[in-house]
Amino acid sequence: MSTEIHSLDPKIIARGREFFASISGESPSVFNKGWWTGKVMDWAMKNEDFKVQMFRFVDVLPYLNTSESLSRHIEEYFSGDDSNIPDVLKWGATKTKIGGGLVAKVLNKTIRSNIETMARQFIIGQTSKEAVKGIKKLRKDGFTFVLDLLGEATVSEVESQAYVDGYLEVLDAIHKEVGKWKPVGASSGDMDWGHAPMVNVAVKPSAFYSQSKPVDVDGTAQGMMERIEPIYRKVMEMGGFMCIDMESLKYKEATVELYKRLRTKYADYPHLGIVYQAYLRSVDEDVRDLIDWAREKELPVSIRLVKGAYWDFETVIAKQNGWPIPVWVNKPESDMAFERASKTILENSDICHYACASHNIRSISSVMEIATELGVPEDRYEFQVLYGMAEPVRKGLKNVAKRVRLYCPYGDLLPGMAYLVRRLLENTANESFLKQTFADEADMDRLLENPEDTLRRQLENKPAPKLKAEGIGKFSNHPFADFTIPEERDAYPAAIERFRSNIGRKVPLFINGKEVETSDTLDSYNPANPNEVIGSVCQAGISEVDQAVEVASEAYLSWRDVPPKERAEVLLKAAQYLKDNIYDLCAVQILEVGKQWDQAQADVAEAIDFLEYYAREMIRLGDPRRMGNAPGEMSHLFYQGKGVAAVIAPWNFPLAISVGMVSAAIVAGCPVVYKPSGISSVVGNGLVDMWKAAGLPDGVFNYCPGRGSVMGDHLVDHPDVSIIAFTGSMEVGLRIQERAAVVQPGQQQCKKVIAEMGGKNAIIIDDDADLDEAVIGVLYSAFGFQGQKCSACSRVIVLDSIYDRFIKRLTEAAESVKLGPSENPANYMGPVADRAAQENVLRYVKIAEEEGTVLVKREVSDDLKATGGCYVPMTIVEGITKEHRIAQEEVFGPVLSVMRAKDMDEALDIANSTRFALTGAIYSRSPANLERAYKEFRVGNLYLNKPSVGALVERHAFGGFKMSGVGSKSGGPDYLLQFLDPRLVCENTMRRGFAPIEDDDDWLN
Amino acid sequence: MSTEIHSLDPKIIARGREFFASISGESPSVFNKGWWTGKVMDWAMKNEDFKVQMFRFVDVLPYLNTSESLSRHIEEYFSGDDSNIPDVLKWGATKTKIGGGLVAKVLNKTIRSNIETMARQFIIGQTSKEAVKGIKKLRKDGFTFVLDLLGEATVSEVESQAYVDGYLEVLDAIHKEVGKWKPVGASSGDMDWGHAPMVNVAVKPSAFYSQSKPVDVDGTAQGMMERIEPIYRKVMEMGGFMCIDMESLKYKEATVELYKRLRTKYADYPHLGIVYQAYLRSVDEDVRDLIDWAREKELPVSIRLVKGAYWDFETVIAKQNGWPIPVWVNKPESDMAFERASKTILENSDICHYACASHNIRSISSVMEIATELGVPEDRYEFQVLYGMAEPVRKGLKNVAKRVRLYCPYGDLLPGMAYLVRRLLENTANESFLKQTFADEADMDRLLENPEDTLRRQLENKPAPKLKAEGIGKFSNHPFADFTIPEERDAYPAAIERFRSNIGRKVPLFINGKEVETSDTLDSYNPANPNEVIGSVCQAGISEVDQAVEVASEAYLSWRDVPPKERAEVLLKAAQYLKDNIYDLCAVQILEVGKQWDQAQADVAEAIDFLEYYAREMIRLGDPRRMGNAPGEMSHLFYQGKGVAAVIAPWNFPLAISVGMVSAAIVAGCPVVYKPSGISSVVGNGLVDMWKAAGLPDGVFNYCPGRGSVMGDHLVDHPDVSIIAFTGSMEVGLRIQERAAVVQPGQQQCKKVIAEMGGKNAIIIDDDADLDEAVIGVLYSAFGFQGQKCSACSRVIVLDSIYDRFIKRLTEAAESVKLGPSENPANYMGPVADRAAQENVLRYVKIAEEEGTVLVKREVSDDLKATGGCYVPMTIVEGITKEHRIAQEEVFGPVLSVMRAKDMDEALDIANSTRFALTGAIYSRSPANLERAYKEFRVGNLYLNKPSVGALVERHAFGGFKMSGVGSKSGGPDYLLQFLDPRLVCENTMRRGFAPIEDDDDWLN
Repeated sequence: MSTEIHSLDPKIIARGREFFASISGESPSVFNKGWWTGKVMDWAMKNEDFKVQMFRFVDVLPYLNTSESLSRHIEEYFSGDDSNIPDVLKWGATKTKIGGGLVAKVLNKTIRSNIETMARQFIIGQTSKEAVKGIKKLRKDGFTFVLDLLGEATVSEVESQAYVDGYLEVLDAIHKEVGKWKPVGASSGDMDWGHAPMVNVAVKPSAFYSQSKPVDVDGTAQGMMERIEPIYRKVMEMGGFMCIDMESLKYKEATVELYKRLRTKYADYPHLGIVYQAYLRSVDEDVRDLIDWAREKELPVSIRLVKGAYWDFETVIAKQNGWPIPVWVNKPESDMAFERASKTILENSDICHYACASHNIRSISSVMEIATELGVPEDRYEFQVLYGMAEPVRKGLKNVAKRVRLYCPYGDLLPGMAYLVRRLLENTANESFLKQTFADEADMDRLLENPEDTLRRQLENKPAPKLKAEGIGKFSNHPFADFTIPEERDAYPAAIERFRSNIGRKVPLFINGKEVETSDTLDSYNPANPNEVIGSVCQAGISEVDQAVEVASEAYLSWRDVPPKERAEVLLKAAQYLKDNIYDLCAVQILEVGKQWDQAQADVAEAIDFLEYYAREMIRLGDPRRMGNAPGEMSHLFYQGKGVAAVIAPWNFPLAISVGMVSAAIVAGCPVVYKPSGISSVVGNGLVDMWKAAGLPDGVFNYCPGRGSVMGDHLVDHPDVSIIAFTGSMEVGLRIQERAAVVQPGQQQCKKVIAEMGGKNAIIIDDDADLDEAVIGVLYSAFGFQGQKCSACSRVIVLDSIYDRFIKRLTEAAESVKLGPSENPANYMGPVADRAAQENVLRYVKIAEEEGTVLVKREVSDDLKATGGCYVPMTIVEGITKEHRIAQEEVFGPVLSVMRAKDMDEALDIANSTRFALTGAIYSRSPANLERAYKEFRVGNLYLNKPSVGALVERHAFGGFKMSGVGSKSGGPDYLLQFLDPRLVCENTMRRGFAPIEDDDDWLN
Repeated sequence: MSTEIHSLDPKIIARGREFFASISGESPSVFNKGWWTGKVMDWAMKNEDFKVQMFRFVDVLPYLNTSESLSRHIEEYFSGDDSNIPDVLKWGATKTKIGGGLVAKVLNKTIRSNIETMARQFIIGQTSKEAVKGIKKLRKDGFTFVLDLLGEATVSEVESQAYVDGYLEVLDAIHKEVGKWKPVGASSGDMDWGHAPMVNVAVKPSAFYSQSKPVDVDGTAQGMMERIEPIYRKVMEMGGFMCIDMESLKYKEATVELYKRLRTKYADYPHLGIVYQAYLRSVDEDVRDLIDWAREKELPVSIRLVKGAYWDFETVIAKQNGWPIPVWVNKPESDMAFERASKTILENSDICHYACASHNIRSISSVMEIATELGVPEDRYEFQVLYGMAEPVRKGLKNVAKRVRLYCPYGDLLPGMAYLVRRLLENTANESFLKQTFADEADMDRLLENPEDTLRRQLENKPAPKLKAEGIGKFSNHPFADFTIPEERDAYPAAIERFRSNIGRKVPLFINGKEVETSDTLDSYNPANPNEVIGSVCQAGISEVDQAVEVASEAYLSWRDVPPKERAEVLLKAAQYLKDNIYDLCAVQILEVGKQWDQAQADVAEAIDFLEYYAREMIRLGDPRRMGNAPGEMSHLFYQGKGVAAVIAPWNFPLAISVGMVSAAIVAGCPVVYKPSGISSVVGNGLVDMWKAAGLPDGVFNYCPGRGSVMGDHLVDHPDVSIIAFTGSMEVGLRIQERAAVVQPGQQQCKKVIAEMGGKNAIIIDDDADLDEAVIGVLYSAFGFQGQKCSACSRVIVLDSIYDRFIKRLTEAAESVKLGPSENPANYMGPVADRAAQENVLRYVKIAEEEGTVLVKREVSDDLKATGGCYVPMTIVEGITKEHRIAQEEVFGPVLSVMRAKDMDEALDIANSTRFALTGAIYSRSPANLERAYKEFRVGNLYLNKPSVGALVERHAFGGFKMSGVGSKSGGPDYLLQFLDPRLVCENTMRRGFAPIEDDDDWLN
């Protein structure tokens, strides 16, 4: 197929040359250095740091409502160590010397006004009136339009509805005018070019449904449909065209589904388009699928093909999540795909109308030649470019192709700034065609050559990839569930069903490689349905604990001397077992503790991470380190496991934390007596199968669920226990510390207590926070898994000047999510872990209501209530100060206190005002405040512009101090040391005055 | 001067060529590959690993008295992973296949016999009878001799005396024969060559006085003199010549002193020589000084000039101790120095007789030509070579120079093996003239060229030394006192005198930068003289402690945020203060706790090391570590000081351990309340001056001596104390742990207890241990600083088959040392720390006497007893088993239990049988047993063929586990972590889908 296009290359290139010739000497206004925008672009292209700062500054600008705030940010963003504000920013300010406050004010005004001017270049208007006016002007110039409303970042249903209203408003405004318009490119009639509706709008579907999520394709498509349908009806009423934009990959499936539903529902109305992105590796298949669908359904379709605007985002997200990169990584590959997909569409022009959206003259020429070659009628394809971008291209296009439509965003400057940043990026990226053409003035032949040739040249010039290192590779986190993959979505219900087929079995203890049954058992139940028993778990008493400690002590004598690498290999095998059984393991926790799918998958993934990470850590630490380089002696520092470890685990990360503590002990050479929480003992029993599969010797791991009141103290006090690894509440943690410090008769080793305890975590909302992200981040931190994470946000500290805006959006967002059983992926929040947890949370809800003013108190439906599930209301209260109990005590449930701070000083003071120091977060776009938080927001894990939850092994090594823990970081580089005693062996290698000299001796130079 | 020799070069080279021509085709027998020795040498030169193993095997061979033991060692030394015993070793064994036990026996026999034959090549006889016979044969061949008795490694006065007796015996034997001898090189008379005494002996002076030590030049020279004098008198009686050999550098000064005393005392008898070593950088000065002395005293002298045989040893020791390297590091420099010094001597031939001792034909030719040029009479110089070495050289020498004397060792093969190793090394060293001449067959021109030219070429070919890194360099330990330097020796008494001039002053507390006096004071006294009050130390009570904790808490708020590098710089300044005041600081502890000079210096040096090391460690840890490489986020792990540290320090390393714990806390950002021991509070007060000098802010360090009973618990319990760093007894340590685990009202942080507690350390003596080193090592480990080290050896576990030999030597060695006040450097052991320590040790001496059989119980003289000093007897008891209290309880004094073990299994079982696991050592030359100890001798610090004491910062990072401590290593890489809470800050760097990509991001490849 590529050869076919290749055969057109001479024509394509000839047409391209012609195109270039027709616009010779012209340059897009953004590159005009005579104007401010051009200067800024020029600087940004030359100076990567400035570019980052500039774009970030543009992003935050709409939030800078006071002169003081604007000044401060200019200072923070642009005053480096050696420079003052770059000259380019001052451009246009009066030439008087900068100094006094007045002058600064003038400067600020200039900068703001310059940036707003820049934004207006790309935005056709801020109001519907302005938009209509702008459109009219365009049409007068011979261009058609497609209108897009800015502000797609909706965090609540209220906002989604408002977005709908925005569209309806502008459509109304157009409706009033459209009758007066003359067609473009046609002498008469009400169709542009004789065939195209004059009214044309684009919609970004996720904006219409704030609860969109990839795991719930049906619900998402449904939610989008409900709000877009009124718009579409209005468009149809006006005889217009609507195009459904494609956003980031995660919404692709729902978007296509939405298109199909709308297209099917209004089968007779042909003017509905959808966008595909050539940068997706799947583009050929995507296009093919839709055309096949159209033929099958006999429904004509319309495709706008773009290169794709989220390349950075898709790539970073994939890398961050450990997913395969879904987009082409070499720019020419996107260009190739664009030509390929264009050809496919044009070959099907009978059923598929085509809008070619590109500024790339090679791509455009290619489409023209393919269309000509195929004899595609002119009414079956058109060209689109962005308003305000690449004016010479649009002019050239109009000359040659005539049918040019401009994509026109309109709306407030606030969301407009985000749009502006995207456009600026597109203009300044090194591989951008626009930059190469107009800023770099690259060789025309290169610009017009077949992208396949460009690619070949790029790959040849690329250094050969490094060979992979031998043996066990670098650690990387296990990928998160990618719910854009249908198989991933289907796996959960299937696994749940499998588990249910064998639910409620008796779970024995596991000691010294053998199952041990006890008469005392404890039932573990589904918190969404307490009648559903997950397992009937045998409970260890004193004698079982003694037996387990004894066999563990015995196992210690050999296990400690197994080479670290061999111990590590057992962990890697265990990790493989978890990977192989991930869905089944998720199913258990979905039912036993009420985790949502993604939460359950993240828990198992974290367990895998612990195994993979600690295995590597032990290999690292297992290598004796030479100490000093004195000749004549060889000194080695190495480590020995301390002894038997009692691992006392919580239920909230029932697999991850258990596996983390247990595997750390085991890989360090310390056999384990493991006591899971009673609430999650069936999940905990998964460790038995895991270690069996990994081939761990008998006695090294012993599964001992039991009632804390019966065997807890006994286990902690046992003289043959050397380590107690505990994660749970402060009360229990401190009790363990106290008891463990008492040396018992016969005890050989001072006990080490690794206690990870509670948190009372805060998120600070700075007055320049990006609320689109902050609202979602706070909501997720506070209510994800019902707030039952030690890292959960239970206090949000909001700066006074943004308080109202934030609270409104937060409240609306909280009111928008769905509540119900976690096993249904549409639900955002489910029941808490068990009846006791429910009662405890309800007590705190009461306290919260007494101490503050309720903003949100959302309960599940009465139907759900009637199931007897352990539901508690999602609660947000305001008016809380640091003296309140609800601001100081850990709730471990979905109760969020809102606290108001007059400035960052007070916010930090409040944030640091509890006994805990576990996690925290701040949303801010002030470099100085972020830096300040980095230093002064004193918690174990602090997140800047990220939620306070979701710590990943290694990347976010987890743990706090003060009363949150002993200052240890699980999943961090110092963690294993806690299970180890260091040993040093120094050999005198000199005999009779003769010492062999080693390569790394500090010898004569 | 070099040019003068250069002007002789043509003649020297001509003579050298003549020399070479006269021995053309001949080769020393050691290089004869037709024989076993030659084969082994060949292998050793080609294979460095084999060389090391071979020489070590030769070294241990005399100890392998059973066939089993021999077999085992052959196996251990020579069976690597891929090879069996090298063929070369089997040479000479019957050609039947190796396999059965009988064949192995034959092989063993062959190997032993081959090695003994090799040894006999270099040793003229094993008995005086053989020696005399050998001498006669040599003389018949026209060579004169100088006789040397092997076995210079004496560890006790009994052995030193036996060594004297050996000399007297051989002299007697010669005396009986000498009358019958005809002169060599003369037709008549009783002088060889007409002028040289026929009897000629060499003595190694340190062997004659087991208590030789560089710090005590006078005592050492005196001790040597007392034993050598009878030999010299006998030599004089026989009209013979005696030469005092030069050994390692540390005895040089005493040796020269000995020579001068003997030479002066017997002024009329001229036949006394001394050896100088050309490899010493000081050789020109050494030779010049003696000649000047001879002229001044008008006493003719005789010098034998050698290159020097301890080059490896001197270099390694200097490197290990941090001293400047005292020898030339480039071989040609020694050759140059040899020629220079020869010239100096020959220029003074009127007063200095010269013996040129070298196998280097260039050196010999040079001496000949210089002598000829200067017209030195033949009776004023002669040539010496080693018996059994370089036969062609001795032959050639005899041809050209006639007057050739052979240096003839005689004596048992046991010490002979050590001698053999030295000779083998000399023959196989890459730079050895013999190897180059006869094995490598290097170019004659190169061998004969002026060494200055050789050096120039070598330096030109050497890679340029690496430039030093910027900033603070790599850590290295502070040099130990080098008592070969007179100024070093003089500095101690001077400092003690200075301190005494101001002794007994009142010592105030130091809180928040201010001195605080209390009414309660405690006198600290000199344990050698309790009437001497060192200082009257103010004692903190509850209110002072509260005040100190309060100011420290206040200081914490700012100090924790001082950048780590700045905190580190304060430590480096403190280190500089200690370096500048080292003698004064030593003086205090010599008087306050009874440290010997070297012990005191080592303590201050260790304090310096802690400061230098922790400073660098904090800089290392202070650098935030990026965690993971995910694009779009920047995750940093860094550390924050935990809070206020209470440092409770012991008196035994009164400066080092105090400074170590205090500086670790301070550099980590934790202000300190420091409670020194009452016994060493004046030393502890040194920290006040140190931190003042370093510019530490007020409140960060607070000096709070006080009575434990009054303020100890209060300090530990204080809610605002976050760390307790304690070094001391197990009882107190465990008490602190218990109390600290109780969270007090208002407490913000879980307390961290760093407890370094007791030890009951063992040294294992394997049946093949080098007893020369083991006896001295055990003695030093057990009785150094009166056994008052937590690392001190209090159990020596001796394998059955070496038990008697070891115990005899140990006992004799213990009886040989001197006891008395530590301030006199001649004394090996002084008083214990105070009256309470004395009483405690005496109690344990009684227990030891009851449980075991006393081998040694040495008390100080009655005179010393009468001073009231806190003396206790040096005690060694045998018959101790692991059930005895004396085998289990820490004594903290000079009481050593001897325990017998039937084999290594039992030895390790005994070693590991206590509650403690601090230090240990093993003396063994069995690679397998060393490896086993490495793994199974489970203590914090294990030393192989080294004493169990004397841990150095970094190189021997120190600390134990079980009841010896919490498993922390002071002076090690994990130490500072204990004072720190880790913090992680993760920034989401993506905004609006755009993330700046960092160099170290895991980005597209």
